[in-house]
Amino acid sequence: MFIQIEPTSDIPIYTQLANQIIELIARGQLKGGDALPSVRALASDLSVNMHTVNKSYHELVHKGIIRIVPKSGAIINPIVQEGITNENCHRIIEQLKPIIAEALVLGMSPEEIGQHASSILVDLKGE
Amino acid sequence: MFIQIEPTSDIPIYTQLANQIIELIARGQLKGGDALPSVRALASDLSVNMHTVNKSYHELVHKGIIRIVPKSGAIINPIVQEGITNENCHRIIEQLKPIIAEALVLGMSPEEIGQHASSILVDLKGE
Repeated sequence: MFIQIEPTSDIPIYTQLANQIIELIARGQLKGGDALPSVRALASDLSVNMHTVNKSYHELVHKGIIRIVPKSGAIINPIVQEGITNENCHRIIEQLKPIIAEALVLGMSPEEIGQHASSILVDLKGE
Repeated sequence: MFIQIEPTSDIPIYTQLANQIIELIARGQLKGGDALPSVRALASDLSVNMHTVNKSYHELVHKGIIRIVPKSGAIINPIVQEGITNENCHRIIEQLKPIIAEALVLGMSPEEIGQHASSILVDLKGE
């Protein structure tokens, strides 16, 4: 599992870690049923605090992306095929809105925003 | 300035506040040159800690959206018209990517993601 943490980034390390795991799932490089490394092993691999990895895993549980199974550890939930729930849809929109607002304020045109979103989708889906 | 804080949200209050100020600027309800309320006044209005408002204002300074002017306080920078800088563009893309990845993992289709982004743009631009 290839994860790269940027210690100097503004983004908290636990968020970087959670985001990269989500990205690996979106790319199909991690699949439903796959186990994530133990908190101890991943913390050691990445030279970060175990508490940080633990916080990432809990964030992923909270988002419904992994589950913690006794004795097996953190297991990835299958990618949802039958459509997003209203609750998750609302959460995604609430996350997108401030970034799109920021993009507009900083001078990105609506067309550019759409193009960047499309490029990200193409990159993630490999299409 | 209409700001509504949800104390029970997962999103930190300082981020909610910064996001809503950015949104008001994107909607044209706050304009370049406008002064934001003093930290003390806004904290009192919203019944939040002054430290929280201060943290929001510093985040907005860091993003290049406001500046702190001695004696005048927090002043909104003009909306950038001549196109986004490469650095800001990179930052926007890095913020969009994990949300789009999360949307895909949670079952939102690429078409739906595009539609939601368009709806947000229409809502913000009032077009």
